[in-house]
This record gives sequence, structure tokens and C-alpha cells, in this order.
Amino acid sequence: MFEAAEVDHHVAKARYEDEVPRLREALLAAQDELRDRERFGLCVVVGGVDAAGKGETVNQLQYWLDPRQVRVHGIGRATDEERARPFYWRFWHLLPPRGQTGVFMGSWYTDAILTHAAGRCSDAELDTVLDEVRHFERMLTDENVHVLKLWFHITKKQVKKRLEKLSKDEATSWRVTDEDWKRLGRYDAMRHSAERALRQTSTDNAPWLVVSGADRRHRQLVVGRAVLETLRRGLDAAPRPEPAPPVPRVPPSIDGRTVLDTLDLAKKVPDEVYDVRLEKLQGRLARLLRTSRFRKKHSLVVAFEGQDAAGKGGSIRRVTAALDPRSYHVVRIAAPSDEEKALPYLWRFWRHVPARGRATLFDRSWYGRVLVERVEGFASQGDWARAYAEINDFEEQLHDHGAVVVKLWLQIDQDEQLRRFREREATGHKRHKITAEDWRNREKWDQYAEAVHEMVVRTSTELAPWTLVGANDKRHARLEVLETLTRAVEARLE
Amino acid sequence: MFEAAEVDHHVAKARYEDEVPRLREALLAAQDELRDRERFGLCVVVGGVDAAGKGETVNQLQYWLDPRQVRVHGIGRATDEERARPFYWRFWHLLPPRGQTGVFMGSWYTDAILTHAAGRCSDAELDTVLDEVRHFERMLTDENVHVLKLWFHITKKQVKKRLEKLSKDEATSWRVTDEDWKRLGRYDAMRHSAERALRQTSTDNAPWLVVSGADRRHRQLVVGRAVLETLRRGLDAAPRPEPAPPVPRVPPSIDGRTVLDTLDLAKKVPDEVYDVRLEKLQGRLARLLRTSRFRKKHSLVVAFEGQDAAGKGGSIRRVTAALDPRSYHVVRIAAPSDEEKALPYLWRFWRHVPARGRATLFDRSWYGRVLVERVEGFASQGDWARAYAEINDFEEQLHDHGAVVVKLWLQIDQDEQLRRFREREATGHKRHKITAEDWRNREKWDQYAEAVHEMVVRTSTELAPWTLVGANDKRHARLEVLETLTRAVEARLE
Repeated sequence: MFEAAEVDHHVAKARYEDEVPRLREALLAAQDELRDRERFGLCVVVGGVDAAGKGETVNQLQYWLDPRQVRVHGIGRATDEERARPFYWRFWHLLPPRGQTGVFMGSWYTDAILTHAAGRCSDAELDTVLDEVRHFERMLTDENVHVLKLWFHITKKQVKKRLEKLSKDEATSWRVTDEDWKRLGRYDAMRHSAERALRQTSTDNAPWLVVSGADRRHRQLVVGRAVLETLRRGLDAAPRPEPAPPVPRVPPSIDGRTVLDTLDLAKKVPDEVYDVRLEKLQGRLARLLRTSRFRKKHSLVVAFEGQDAAGKGGSIRRVTAALDPRSYHVVRIAAPSDEEKALPYLWRFWRHVPARGRATLFDRSWYGRVLVERVEGFASQGDWARAYAEINDFEEQLHDHGAVVVKLWLQIDQDEQLRRFREREATGHKRHKITAEDWRNREKWDQYAEAVHEMVVRTSTELAPWTLVGANDKRHARLEVLETLTRAVEARLE
Repeated sequence: MFEAAEVDHHVAKARYEDEVPRLREALLAAQDELRDRERFGLCVVVGGVDAAGKGETVNQLQYWLDPRQVRVHGIGRATDEERARPFYWRFWHLLPPRGQTGVFMGSWYTDAILTHAAGRCSDAELDTVLDEVRHFERMLTDENVHVLKLWFHITKKQVKKRLEKLSKDEATSWRVTDEDWKRLGRYDAMRHSAERALRQTSTDNAPWLVVSGADRRHRQLVVGRAVLETLRRGLDAAPRPEPAPPVPRVPPSIDGRTVLDTLDLAKKVPDEVYDVRLEKLQGRLARLLRTSRFRKKHSLVVAFEGQDAAGKGGSIRRVTAALDPRSYHVVRIAAPSDEEKALPYLWRFWRHVPARGRATLFDRSWYGRVLVERVEGFASQGDWARAYAEINDFEEQLHDHGAVVVKLWLQIDQDEQLRRFREREATGHKRHKITAEDWRNREKWDQYAEAVHEMVVRTSTELAPWTLVGANDKRHARLEVLETLTRAVEARLE
């Protein structure tokens, strides 16, 4: 993998000075076109051997480009905000919006490679991490963030020479630390771990480019050309054709029955039972979330979904009544803002992922993509078909970081919905809750049922199962919701 | 101030249960109206004596309200991201957008009052902080964030009784900490400090409401009514009339000369001088920003302003060439996003305030309000006239936290601008840089000159002076820019 980069490359000054003006003009033109067309975002990942000229090359690249459309991120130690959330949160946070470029010096690879090289994780553990990396990068390219990965390589002998040279010059000696010398001692182990990582993550959508770091002008031209090529390829490519539907699909059920038909909507809870049960469940949930175990290791993420007027708002209110008001956040998902639209779909949910000890309740959620966006045609078939796997991935990351993930579908029947719509229209301050859209959605009842069925089939996992709640009786639904939450947290704390 | 809150209030259960349903319905209706009309954001500040029922009351309020339009912030110890930036950054960060409500449990008052009560700051120091608070809250209400401040008060005897009661009950004993008992010992000092703080910050736009915390039902009704009243007053008020122009205005100069006429635009730098000077200045700046003193205590904030085609982009590029690419961020200010539009004007700049050791270069800046927004009529006269003071305040906060604030106006004359426009139109990849808007702006040359003149008069301060740069010769301008930056950082490090 690295042999080709050890060939003795050299670019003469004259040739460099001949090429650079044309390269730069082409880069600026491509960048401007990207800004205006907002077709994709570009993510440049920079890794490699110490002292192989990474910083210098990125500097030069920044100088060639229009710095207003580029942001360079030095990925150092995680901040306390970052450590309190899943690993990828900080990278989601920094993703370039469409039209922009983000350069990551240090990335989602850094920790994995260093840890493996130091012998602190096994091959199998590294491979698991690399598998997650592939998923993440696949999601990025699918969601219009193109990925260019650059690995700067020089030989051990060259590293040593560079460090010695930098140390001698007064102007640069501050750049060489004890850590650098220590790392030189681990060069071979690093090379081995990096090889494994690059090999497993050189995918068709995000291959690595190994850059020979020995000659300054050579490496700059290689990187400049690679960035230009990536930009141009993305700009000039024909629009992606709508992908064929996934095979096999979850077929519409032959007898017309869906998972929703398994619910007994007639269940009712009498008033006197309700009051006692409600208070008891709220108390139990309150105590669970106040345990030091929950506060130190876990968080709570709840997705509320259901038909219009199914009672999501009322259920949420019964849950929040049990929580410390400083510890949770209710997020209402409606149309995305323009900042959200310029980033991968899940960005708008990642930004609300709670820190340990906290809860986020989503009133409608990331399932919008496979429900309303699917049925109404707001998302292309490719987008929503792909979403199931992306969502499972998202929830697994939450779960692995300690989050209790609860997903609730509140189900009412058509008669009950009609009754509630009419009731809302008759009640002054609730009238605005009923819009023409609600009536239109109602006409697509069966399409929604089919979408819900497929959603449950594809995304109800052990880590994050769906709970279907019969909600014709509001009191029954609220108790079910609280009971589900309480049980889920209890199970996790055991 | 607190005597009235020590009167023995009591609300009977029957009366409470009679009022609550109506109160709640009115609250929900007001909140929905606020969401739909997006007229203002509401900021509820909650402070007060320990064990006076703050948490319980906020909980109840949350239950009454629609939790999807409310966010409660528990202001605890600052995170490391927060500590690396000016004090108000974390509050700016959390401001409610228009249509939403933010409840701050703990606020910009907490530290000041605690520090004063513990005898760790003098009266004069407290008063300085309170003065800043008044500025901040004035800015909020001017920028459509209404502020309701609630102070929960009970007597020392009542605190003691409460703590004892909580300690005895197994379900609540975890809520009482050693710290609570210690604070009881400081009750009188706290009362004294709080009195001083409340007195000085009970302004017409954001007065304090002291809530008697002794009776649960009484305090809940008081708070519920206060929130309702604040919402209704904001919703029902007639639109604010356009304020009269500030008196005295900075008059258009009698002889037509402005500060811009003091510049010698003919200055030129020969090629051979330029190359040597440029490299030298870049080296100097690079070394300054890499000193451990800069990295630990300071940051750099630069605003680039100037006519269209004055060479801001080229100058920025010559600066960034000297910086570590991981340490800076170039922000291009264009039309605000919809998230930005829903928040006070300066929010979009606060979000980019650099942490210590870092730099943000703004290509156009917060001065947009008193330049393009003023001349084109995008901001009302009241808005831009008020902006001078808000801006001075913003820059003072940056400066006080260690930021070196540099503001550069790049000036060209009309002939030179015409020459550059024509040149851009003739150059393929620069053609898109010239739009109809640029030609329109050109016709308002004199109006812009007047706006620049007033801007310099009102906002060139010792802490953050304006530097006017003659930019007819690009090389001269770039050297001036680098020289100004270098000197400013040097002066700060001395």
C-alpha cells in the first residue's frame, strides 16, 4: 500500500511554477461553481505519518482556495460536551454544508489507528471500528457529502531526518515535541495499523489516496489536483438516476393486515384507576432518572410518532411532568430550516442528541423520512429506502453510548380521528391545530398504514424496539407510554 | 424589596382549582399565537433563595405550557467550550428564537450575586457587572426577546424548616446537600447582595417580580399569571412606532469631507519591496499567534469591510497564509439564514466568536447593519441607530475576554472600482463576481460614504479602533492590513 509512495518523486521548480497558476484558477472556478450550485459538500480527511508535510500542504491548499468556503478542523482531544455524547457527534457537528468544504486534520480514524498501534485494541476490535467508519462514509456520500481521504506517507528514515532538521532551526524547533520522538519509535507499529485501516476503508465511494510526503512541490501538486478532480467529478457528473426499489421489498400484506391490526384499540382505563397509576408511574420514572447510575452513564431518547390527533402532545406532557425541567428538551420536528436542509438528513436530529444524564423527547422524529416524506413524495425513493439502515445505525450508536432509545407509535382508528378533528374545530383555542393538510393526510390512511408496517418491520430492533400503543382511549395510551419508558430504563439500569 | 413577599400569602385549594383551568387555557392560546406570529421570544429568568420552590414551580409551569415551545436551561458550571469565550457567549447560545420560550434556572445574575455575598467582590465590582446586565437586557428587549425575571423569596426560618422537612423524607432527602446547609449560614449576606442586584436591575424594560415562595398554590398562580401577562402584553401591543432619529446626529459634513478623504489613495508599493515586506510581516504575525501567551490568553477577531471590489478577499488570503490552518475560521457574511433571522441581530456573529488561541476573520461583519442595511433600508432607522451602542458593547466584551479586535475599512475610489468591475467582467472565472447589485450599490456611493463616516465616528474606540486602508494599490493595502494586525497583536501581548 505504501510502497508506491516511497518512490523518489521530485517536481522541479519550473514545472511547479508553470502548473500552479492554472491549477489555482481551476480550483477557484470549481469552488465558486460549487458554492453557487450547492450540489454537495466536500469533506477532505487528512491523516498520515508525522512530519510528512500535512500541515504545510493544507496551508498551501487553503491559500489556493477561497478561504471563505473552506473550514479546517484540527481534531484534538474531545471537549467535555463531546465526551458526553456518542463518538460521531463531534463530526456530525462539523460536517460541511452543501457548497462548502471541510478539511479534517485528524478524523474518525485517528483514535482507532493510534490505539491499535499502541497494542491497546485487538485486530477484531479495530475491524469493528472500521466497519462503523465505512457505514458513516457511505452515509456521507449518499447524502451528498463527498469524501476525499489523503494519507501522507514518508519512510522512517525521512521522519527522523525531518525531526532533526526542524529541531535545529530556531524558528521551527517549537514544533517538535517529545511526543514526536516517542512516536518515531512506534513507526513500524503505526505503519502496520495504518495499512490495515486504509486497506479496509478504501471503498468505491471514499477511497484513500496515499500521498508521498517527501518532496514539497510534488505533494502539493498531488493534493491540489486531487481536490480539483473531486470537485470537478462531483460538479460534472450527471444527476444520479433514481435507484431501483430495494429487493426484496417488504410486500404489502396479502390479506391487508398490518402490525397495526394486532392492536386492541378498545382498551379503556377507568378514571379512578388512571389517577393512581399515573402518579405511581411518574414517581417511578422520576426516581429512575435521578439515580446516579442513570445520570453518569445513560441518557434517554424518545421518538413519538402516530397519526394526526393521536395524542402525542398530551402523552409527552405526562412524561415531562415526571422529569426535572433542567434535564430534558422536547423537540418538535416540523419542516427543516435552510441550515438543516444543506446537511445530511440525520444532522437535524444529531444536533439534539442529549448528553449523559439528560433526555430528549422528539415530537415526530427521524422516522419522518420513511413516513410523511415517503408517502407525500418529499424524499426520493432512493432516499427513503436507504433511510432504514441509516436509522438503525444512528440508534445503535445512541444505544452503545448508553442512551435508552424508546420509539412509540400511537395508533387511533379513522372514526376516532374524525371525532377528534371535529372536536378541535369546535374548540376555540384548538381550532388552529386542524389544517387542510390534516384532512388531506387522512385520505392517505392506507398508504400511511403500509409505511408504518414497513417501518416497524425494518427498524424494530432489540436495541431500539418499536412499541405500538392503542390510543383511542387517551388515558390508556398515556399509561402505556409511561409504562414503556419506565420498563426500558429499568431494563437498562439492571 | 422583599418585605412584601414575607406577607403570609395563602391560596385555598378550591380557589386554585377554579382558576387553573382558565389560566392554562389562556396560556396555551397565547403560546400558540406566539408560535404562529413569531412576534418575539420570551426569556424567563428564575432566581432566588434555596428551597423557595423554584424547581417545583417551573415544573408546574412546564406542565401548563406546551413543552414543545419551551426550553428550560439549568445554568451550572461553564463547560470548557464556554470558559474559552466571553461570559455572555453561553447565554447568547441559548437565547430563545422568536415564537419560543426559554426558562433560565440560574442566569447571568447567579455568579455575581454569589461572589458578592461571599465577600469576594466589592460593591463597585458588583455594580459594574450589573451595569453590563442592564445593557444585555436592554439589547434583548430591543431585539424582540422579552424578559420576565422572577425572584423566589422566603425567610431564613422558612428555608430551615423546608430543608429539615426534605431531609426527613426518604424520597426527597437526596435533594438536600451539605452545600444547602452552608448556604443557609450565608442567608443574610445573600439577601443583602440580592437586594442590591435586584434594585439596580429592575428596569422599565425588564423589572423583577419578587415571588413569595411560602405557599405552593400561591406562588404557582403568581408565576402563571405573570407569564400570561407578559405573553399577552407582547402579543396585544401595537407595533412599536419608528423612533425619532437620535439627537444629536453625526451631521453630514458641511464641506463634504469625510474621514475617508484623509486617505492618500495614491500610495504605491513597488514589486520588489512588496515581496520582501509581505514575507516578513507574515512571519512576524505567525510567530506572534504561536506564542504560548497568545494561545492561552488571547484570540483574534478581524472585521474586513470596504466597497465592492476593494480587495477584501485578497487581503484575507494574505493573512490566512500566515496562520495555522487549524487555528482560524473565515466567515463570509451574506444574507442571514432563517435560524439567524429569528434571533437578535448579533447572534449570528456571537456564534462565531473564537475560543482562546484562535482567530475568526469576518469578510463583511456586524457593521452590515449600519452600512448596507442602513443605506438600503433593510433595517429600520431605530434598529441601525441603536446598533452603534450594541456593537461597542459587543466589542468591549470581546476585548475584555482577551480578544484582539481589529476593524479594517478598505477604501478605493470610484475610478478604480469601475476599472476592477470591468476587469472582472472580462475575466472568465471572475465574471460571476459582478452582479447587477454591484452596479446599483455604486450609484449610492455618497450615501455609503456618509454611513462609513458615521460608523467610524461612533465606533472607533480605544479598545477596537478602525483602521482605514487606502486600497487603490492592492499591494499597499495588503501590507497595511498585515501591519495593522501585527501591531495590534504586539500591543496586546506587551
